[in-house]
Amino acid sequence: MSPARHALLRDMFAAAIAAADPALCVPPYLPDPPKGRTIVVGAGKAAASMARALEAHWPGPLEGLVVTRYGHGVPCQRIAVVEAAHPVPDAAGLAAAQAILALVQGAGREDLVICLISGGGSALLTLPAQGVSFAQKQAVNQALLASGAGIGEMNCVRRHLSAIKGGQLAAACAPAKVVSLIISDVPGDDLSVIASGPTVPDPTTIAEAAAILARLNIAAPPLVETPKPGDPLFAHVQNILIGSGNASLEAAAAVARKAGFHPLVLGDQIEGEAREVGLVHAGLARHIARGQGPVALPCAIISGGETRVTGAHGGRGGRNSEFLLALAVALEGLPDSVALAGDTDGIDGTQTNAGAVIGPDTLARARAAGLDPRAMLDAHLSYDVFAALNDLVVTGPTLTNVNDVRIVLVG
Amino acid sequence: MSPARHALLRDMFAAAIAAADPALCVPPYLPDPPKGRTIVVGAGKAAASMARALEAHWPGPLEGLVVTRYGHGVPCQRIAVVEAAHPVPDAAGLAAAQAILALVQGAGREDLVICLISGGGSALLTLPAQGVSFAQKQAVNQALLASGAGIGEMNCVRRHLSAIKGGQLAAACAPAKVVSLIISDVPGDDLSVIASGPTVPDPTTIAEAAAILARLNIAAPPLVETPKPGDPLFAHVQNILIGSGNASLEAAAAVARKAGFHPLVLGDQIEGEAREVGLVHAGLARHIARGQGPVALPCAIISGGETRVTGAHGGRGGRNSEFLLALAVALEGLPDSVALAGDTDGIDGTQTNAGAVIGPDTLARARAAGLDPRAMLDAHLSYDVFAALNDLVVTGPTLTNVNDVRIVLVG
Repeated sequence: MSPARHALLRDMFAAAIAAADPALCVPPYLPDPPKGRTIVVGAGKAAASMARALEAHWPGPLEGLVVTRYGHGVPCQRIAVVEAAHPVPDAAGLAAAQAILALVQGAGREDLVICLISGGGSALLTLPAQGVSFAQKQAVNQALLASGAGIGEMNCVRRHLSAIKGGQLAAACAPAKVVSLIISDVPGDDLSVIASGPTVPDPTTIAEAAAILARLNIAAPPLVETPKPGDPLFAHVQNILIGSGNASLEAAAAVARKAGFHPLVLGDQIEGEAREVGLVHAGLARHIARGQGPVALPCAIISGGETRVTGAHGGRGGRNSEFLLALAVALEGLPDSVALAGDTDGIDGTQTNAGAVIGPDTLARARAAGLDPRAMLDAHLSYDVFAALNDLVVTGPTLTNVNDVRIVLVG
Repeated sequence: MSPARHALLRDMFAAAIAAADPALCVPPYLPDPPKGRTIVVGAGKAAASMARALEAHWPGPLEGLVVTRYGHGVPCQRIAVVEAAHPVPDAAGLAAAQAILALVQGAGREDLVICLISGGGSALLTLPAQGVSFAQKQAVNQALLASGAGIGEMNCVRRHLSAIKGGQLAAACAPAKVVSLIISDVPGDDLSVIASGPTVPDPTTIAEAAAILARLNIAAPPLVETPKPGDPLFAHVQNILIGSGNASLEAAAAVARKAGFHPLVLGDQIEGEAREVGLVHAGLARHIARGQGPVALPCAIISGGETRVTGAHGGRGGRNSEFLLALAVALEGLPDSVALAGDTDGIDGTQTNAGAVIGPDTLARARAAGLDPRAMLDAHLSYDVFAALNDLVVTGPTLTNVNDVRIVLVG
């Protein structure tokens, strides 16, 4: 692989991560300090790194508490950081949610609550509604998962079983002003879905939640109403998207453009089986390579979202390395094509790499090393291929997450 | 679904088929009649319909023979049409290939040979090289298929075991002038691959073929050399691509453009599991629907190539209907989106439809009809869904083939 293209791939990936890095994306969106107190709360995998970024740039006094996933805490000076379980909530998360509600319920008209929201916040910020036990809520959750209900239906029910989701955190902050800084891990960036939208009007109703449970034959505990769009309480609430898959893809595209590559951004909503998504990217790359594609050469195909790997029992290789190995096999013989795919959280699957890179010589080098690329792909051992070739991309945990970034340079 | 969008989808699909219809794409490329005889030969699923189109527009005398697949014959006045087996060759194909060679071997310097080439021609135009028996050739073919050899490797070996493939038909025509009219069913339109390139220089060598067989431990019958690029015989040979997946996609794009839709053509090389390819198209559609995509709204995403359906034992539903049902499920909730997918040969899978259409109401109408779209998708019963909804697209056999056309209108 040409060193220049290799470097460009890595620069683009670094730019994508930087666009979602709390240290860089929190400071530009900080509101003016209030007359009264500043209370910081938050939940999500990026909550602690967001809190640290806020602390570092906040001009006045502040206090607060955020909850993040085990292993995602970073030391903060003034904001308490609690670690809790994800994706299945635990008592630590429950206690943190109670503490957060207690904190904001004391806020007055002159005070400011800053909410730091990121992916994973839904499980981390868990508090059953009045009259619902933690066990009841968990039972409904299990039943929903087993029912095959859509994600939209599950979210609707969950919001109406919670004391904090679906705009209820914002309601608890009243009469204080609320500014929510949100890093999205949800394709499409629906604010009411990210971390179940604790400061966002709930577009669904208690009647809808009841109907879903009835249809699925799930016993319904007492449901609560949530604040709806148009509720005057949101006049004091500002929800700001400060990081997202799309923003990161556009940041990568900007780097490509500077290097003379024409970007084609397919968006942050690309899903599907990783190796099949690899085939589609390969087909598009081959089309563009012929010079008749939707963008001129040289070009950078850029996509985000989250693919999946099915049936990888015992296999090693996250979705990004599986995507890349399938892509390499499908691109064989196409000169000059290189690619990188990685998870912006820094961990692709179960190993310690964020992703990997491929080039026109990947398969030949693998074969020279005694590896059969197709067989390794079928055994879901893509990680082992890239580890053997020393083609892993390692960033370490980034403490943020806007899903995957896939880049194919063509021509 | 809005009737206007429904009509646009069908017009686009019709334009794609028309661009590959021999009645329309053969006449513009007919050469001037020669001083001497005109001999027409040909092979492929479209060979008979190409022959009929030629006959209808040819100003002078002509004679000839083409071989097509069983069921693909159409009556011709002056060109003999032979039907033979595909994809496994039979004695009828063997006899036809011998007759074709005999026909052209009598051609002189003042004569013109017109070759009509289309997909399927490789199996239909089968003739073992001198010293190789039909049984030997078939045994090598079987061994190649079982070995997991790449399609490029298989083609290399096949050309060097044949008396007619890999430019050898053109060699047999010398010293006559040769004009090959070619309809491509090969993604990327490599002329040496379409029907194994009977009139095209062979870029591979006898040494490569021998090496492939040796590596795969397949006993090699005597191999023959094929004409190579630069061979002076090709000075009298013209290979003209008159129909292709890309040309058909661009024809559909032109119709979209006229209707005010911005086309995004992903090319004719999109492969992968049909339902996963559906997910990728859905993700791209959702991205473009947000107004930040690579093309403005309203837009027409257009793609070709051939997807596959794995594990559909007993299921009904070709790859296009499976693609569409997966797309409908993934697009649920996105307003205004409609789609059509179909096979340009007029037959999607094992049923009698070319494809189907979906709209924003597809899932609701299916559920109202008592069907569970997700369950039907998992059971590979997409055909039954669209049949029940009366949303099949039926064209009848088109007697041409440039693979699939998929169209998603967004915004």
